[in-house]
Amino acid sequence: MKVPIAVSARHAHLSSSTIQKLFGEGYELRVRNWLSQTGQFSAEETVSLTGPRGRLDNVRLMGPPRERDQVELSRSDECLLGISAPLRVSGDLSQTPGLQVEGPAGTVTLQSGVMTAQRHIHMSPAEGRRIGLHAGQVVSVKVDSNGRDLIFGDVVVRIAPDFRLELHLDTDEANAAGVTNGDYAEIVTNDRPTTDPSTGQSAP
Amino acid sequence: MKVPIAVSARHAHLSSSTIQKLFGEGYELRVRNWLSQTGQFSAEETVSLTGPRGRLDNVRLMGPPRERDQVELSRSDECLLGISAPLRVSGDLSQTPGLQVEGPAGTVTLQSGVMTAQRHIHMSPAEGRRIGLHAGQVVSVKVDSNGRDLIFGDVVVRIAPDFRLELHLDTDEANAAGVTNGDYAEIVTNDRPTTDPSTGQSAP
Repeated sequence: MKVPIAVSARHAHLSSSTIQKLFGEGYELRVRNWLSQTGQFSAEETVSLTGPRGRLDNVRLMGPPRERDQVELSRSDECLLGISAPLRVSGDLSQTPGLQVEGPAGTVTLQSGVMTAQRHIHMSPAEGRRIGLHAGQVVSVKVDSNGRDLIFGDVVVRIAPDFRLELHLDTDEANAAGVTNGDYAEIVTNDRPTTDPSTGQSAP
Repeated sequence: MKVPIAVSARHAHLSSSTIQKLFGEGYELRVRNWLSQTGQFSAEETVSLTGPRGRLDNVRLMGPPRERDQVELSRSDECLLGISAPLRVSGDLSQTPGLQVEGPAGTVTLQSGVMTAQRHIHMSPAEGRRIGLHAGQVVSVKVDSNGRDLIFGDVVVRIAPDFRLELHLDTDEANAAGVTNGDYAEIVTNDRPTTDPSTGQSAP
């Protein structure tokens, strides 16, 4: 089963309130390009992130705005900034560290919301049925590349009506496997059932 | 077969000539700590690296000096600097890009020498005989970690009298696997024989 790979570089999903503090009152993100996941877009706007040890500029914002601020970094990014964020599924922001976010109109100190994304495969319910996978299942995924072949374990299946089949890796993971956007991976094993991280419910 | 993991962060091996241009005439590197591979040390001295897109400070030098300048970066580092370096075994520097190196007494523009290290296992000839591996062999190595289990393929066996058993990963690879210095990996398969990258000879 071949799955297209999407590499997530460092990015932030911010709330309308935070966006207005960074870019000005009433500001709305402009669409740069639509992502493969329905309704999601990368924005024209970028911010700077500052931690105890360093700073990263030109960090892309994603839209539309979310209820809660969420910053997704690779471990390499965290090392440069001097912070350590846990592995999380998107939206699970309890006990995450914060950092300082700077925009053209202001600076916001987030108290939490920084995470490293748990690698995962997005798929629609129909795709899940076709492949025989359910939400929360953990699978292994094989990548053939020139000099960096690799099998990722601990890949969580995430299913939602607006998801399309895609393996999401962060830049450390993509670099370690020698792959980039549009390359393909192969689901090779189904490891073990677990709870559905998007709902906290036991998977069927 | 358990193998201790050593994570190589970005670093440079420089020639005496380059060291003197960066730190002053007659300058000699000071030992910060001895590495597990006999005679090798990380130095007190650091340099700054500059590429077309960015700059990295506090990049550690290794000693003793080598005949040729060699800078080892992760792909994440290269992305920040705006350069693209090939996957190489240490010492194989043909057709590698350069960058600018800055020290307290001067700046040197390297014309080549920047590489991303091919992941590899160091071992002595006796360890190779004991495990049943030969120089240049390519193996797979399994890592169990909390949330980032992974099997690395394309791990090259490197054998030399002054080597000690150790899996060398760069920071992208270690981050993707959720491991750090002193963790252990397990050799799980022997893939295929190849030429010995340290000599270019066919492996026995």
